[in-house]
Amino acid sequence: MRRDPLALAEKAQAGNQGAGARLIRMLEERDEGAVEGLRALLPAAGNAHLLGITGPPGAGKSTLVDRIVSELRRRGRTVGVIAVDPSSPFSGGAILGDRVRMQTHATDPGVFIRSMATRGQLGGLARASFEATTVLDAMGYDVVLIETVGVGQDEVDVVELAHTTAVVAIPGMGDDIQAIKAGILEVGDLFIVNKADLPGADRVVKQLTAMLHLREPSSDRGRARGWEPPIVKTEAERARGIPEVVDTLDAHRAHLEASGGLEHKAVRRRERVFHDVLRERAAARVLAAAPNAGEEILAELRAGSLDPYAAVDRLLGRSSRED
Amino acid sequence: MRRDPLALAEKAQAGNQGAGARLIRMLEERDEGAVEGLRALLPAAGNAHLLGITGPPGAGKSTLVDRIVSELRRRGRTVGVIAVDPSSPFSGGAILGDRVRMQTHATDPGVFIRSMATRGQLGGLARASFEATTVLDAMGYDVVLIETVGVGQDEVDVVELAHTTAVVAIPGMGDDIQAIKAGILEVGDLFIVNKADLPGADRVVKQLTAMLHLREPSSDRGRARGWEPPIVKTEAERARGIPEVVDTLDAHRAHLEASGGLEHKAVRRRERVFHDVLRERAAARVLAAAPNAGEEILAELRAGSLDPYAAVDRLLGRSSRED
Repeated sequence: MRRDPLALAEKAQAGNQGAGARLIRMLEERDEGAVEGLRALLPAAGNAHLLGITGPPGAGKSTLVDRIVSELRRRGRTVGVIAVDPSSPFSGGAILGDRVRMQTHATDPGVFIRSMATRGQLGGLARASFEATTVLDAMGYDVVLIETVGVGQDEVDVVELAHTTAVVAIPGMGDDIQAIKAGILEVGDLFIVNKADLPGADRVVKQLTAMLHLREPSSDRGRARGWEPPIVKTEAERARGIPEVVDTLDAHRAHLEASGGLEHKAVRRRERVFHDVLRERAAARVLAAAPNAGEEILAELRAGSLDPYAAVDRLLGRSSRED
Repeated sequence: MRRDPLALAEKAQAGNQGAGARLIRMLEERDEGAVEGLRALLPAAGNAHLLGITGPPGAGKSTLVDRIVSELRRRGRTVGVIAVDPSSPFSGGAILGDRVRMQTHATDPGVFIRSMATRGQLGGLARASFEATTVLDAMGYDVVLIETVGVGQDEVDVVELAHTTAVVAIPGMGDDIQAIKAGILEVGDLFIVNKADLPGADRVVKQLTAMLHLREPSSDRGRARGWEPPIVKTEAERARGIPEVVDTLDAHRAHLEASGGLEHKAVRRRERVFHDVLRERAAARVLAAAPNAGEEILAELRAGSLDPYAAVDRLLGRSSRED
């Protein structure tokens, strides 16, 4: 009963955090039937403002997220947080870390925090966070915040699925701009220069301004037309600049609603998950259709007598003959 | 002729850098037939020592790689470098950056540097770097070095495909360990504390030592049994500590050869690429088998009348009926 995904979905939608947590865990583990629970929640999802927050390690994102959550709560909004820690080295470590970190909100029923340590799954991070944000969305949280710890392709993918993405930079990280240039500059709807009391903060703002002027006026990377990404200075430790950040997040949401960008983003999310799920299931079907041939081919691949491309050719050729 | 992949493969194998560069670009662009060129090179590959270097932005990896290349050249070895910049925001920017950066080696025919800005492809980074390293390997470079700029899941995937992985840390990056904990601690065969002249270097060494003792003695993440990852302090700017790094890389390679770990890694590489290629081709086949149904389903998905999971169900159901 505890693991019945439809029952969990129903309870989650009624606001039961334990049920929501269990369903997310089942989805993360690709538990049989968990997708049915998720699908039952889809009609209730679509109302939350999805925020992505990313930036290099050491930028103070944890504290920043903590402060933004407090500010959102002050404004009467409920908040779900997905902290994405791709392949945390010590299982549980990240989750414990987040719990300790976010203890400010531990007793607040209007805040729900989940850490995800999805690892080893090809493209699994984007899909897993889509699914987790959908659960939180359907649970009725006004804002669902996705925090990623890296600056790689996966992190770009994750935050691209959000409505509004904030990129965090700080002064003094070696070559300042290099620290944030890798991939995430283009997806930012808002730039936060955190630790703005450190020397060099204005230099970072200047560099960002210059780089933003070089950006294509409207790329297809999900940014809304006619939106100039603001740069906001913060000192998260002292809770400075946080209301300005939340004002800007709200302004971007309003801009998306007015420009039709919200629907555009929703379509991208659906397409992305469709292709991800299709790839996985189509491959599984091919392997299941010819289990013996699959095993033979994998054995030859491991032994090195077949290269990966030839192995796929052989399997697909065989599989279509057997259909 | 210039774009005939088999001709390019032949020239690349003979050491022609332009041909190698064009073949890598074709592979990156998923050019029709490029895989045939790659497959022609597979028998010649397998001799290079594949090195992965990763770590957070601002750790000085660029200079470090530059120095390691110089030291390898001093020891008479040829070097291919793949700099992975996932989704560089300004196309060409990364490539120009690397060329400027690595100009030390610009006139040395024993060094070949390629930047890859693979973006938007699900799981594409690991496959693209597998393919690029295979080309460089087959071209005869003694060492093929893969440098990644991030610390996300994709970067872990990329360096896991290497034989030997060096993780770079520096002192003073906020919470030092947090900056490197996300996923890459577990894949390191060697840890480099760069900028070791900065205050706090010994503290980072101590923290790393403590965390390495917490590591599972032999995980399945590709590390070789019986190898204790050394921690080496460097000052890349002043070329200090570099011979020790190269000695350690060599020692790890020797350890892998003695323990059978080299073959184990090669099998993992083949399996990884096999599953990646299978997913992509199986999905493409499903879509190609029912183009009209596929378009209808995608239209419903975009309109929101079909969720992604139902869309895949419908497509796979239809496709198997049409087979």
